[in-house]
Amino acid sequence: MSITIRQAGVGDGSTLHAMALELATNHGHGQDFTAVPEDFERFLADPSPVGGAFIAFWAGEPAGSAIWHRSFSTFRGRETLYLEDLSVLPGHRRRGIGNELLRAVARLAQSRGLPAISWLMMDWNAGARRLYEAAGAEIEGGTCYCRLSGEALERLGS
Amino acid sequence: MSITIRQAGVGDGSTLHAMALELATNHGHGQDFTAVPEDFERFLADPSPVGGAFIAFWAGEPAGSAIWHRSFSTFRGRETLYLEDLSVLPGHRRRGIGNELLRAVARLAQSRGLPAISWLMMDWNAGARRLYEAAGAEIEGGTCYCRLSGEALERLGS
Repeated sequence: MSITIRQAGVGDGSTLHAMALELATNHGHGQDFTAVPEDFERFLADPSPVGGAFIAFWAGEPAGSAIWHRSFSTFRGRETLYLEDLSVLPGHRRRGIGNELLRAVARLAQSRGLPAISWLMMDWNAGARRLYEAAGAEIEGGTCYCRLSGEALERLGS
Repeated sequence: MSITIRQAGVGDGSTLHAMALELATNHGHGQDFTAVPEDFERFLADPSPVGGAFIAFWAGEPAGSAIWHRSFSTFRGRETLYLEDLSVLPGHRRRGIGNELLRAVARLAQSRGLPAISWLMMDWNAGARRLYEAAGAEIEGGTCYCRLSGEALERLGS
């Protein structure tokens, strides 16, 4: 058995949607997940794309994905690459798929001349921590994720 | 005295650089800050911009800034707006400048049809927490910030 990885393109929306939903559910946030497959099709077909994705296959079957978007570091004053989701389906864990997806994202950053990749990790996720530390990532705790949406966003902007 | 806010444009690079440096130093990360003013000029002049910025003035003097970039939420399947830096210079705190900058970012998100703004906050930053909670933000702890750059990035991508 072996891993193959390719960039996602038009037609891969439902595959990406299924993996993003699995990851959200696995993190206990299934109730906050409102995306539909067509949203990911639009993301992939955007004429001014904010990002893209890779899909990993195991024996020809979709087994994982990495969804990234453009970012900017004020510390570096440079565009960087942000890894929004790194997902490996439950039946495909411990096969090195996560690491291969991370490598694909690293190669993409290099090919775009970007100096860094960044992402978030929940502090309880020991499996993810092992993967990221082995890859040489710096991991900094004590961070809170803040979000403003819905009525609060409308109120603030009015 | 009153606050005025405008979008940053070409020529504002050194103002943004000074504020980003102040914020990084204030957060104890001055040694990681390598950007120069020209980097921010390039950011503002990018023909395919990943983001932009607002500058707040108090009595005509630059007093704060908000630097944002495009983002994508896999939960929503929608483009969102990410607030990279919200900075108020030390002599200008407690004047409502942070809130006015946040409102400008909220209005921008609305004008672009984006459903959410997100950002990170250090968990020790009580002043920021008060500002964000008053604005109606949801704040979730337990997050780690991960970064891969330099030799580790080269090694992984090779």
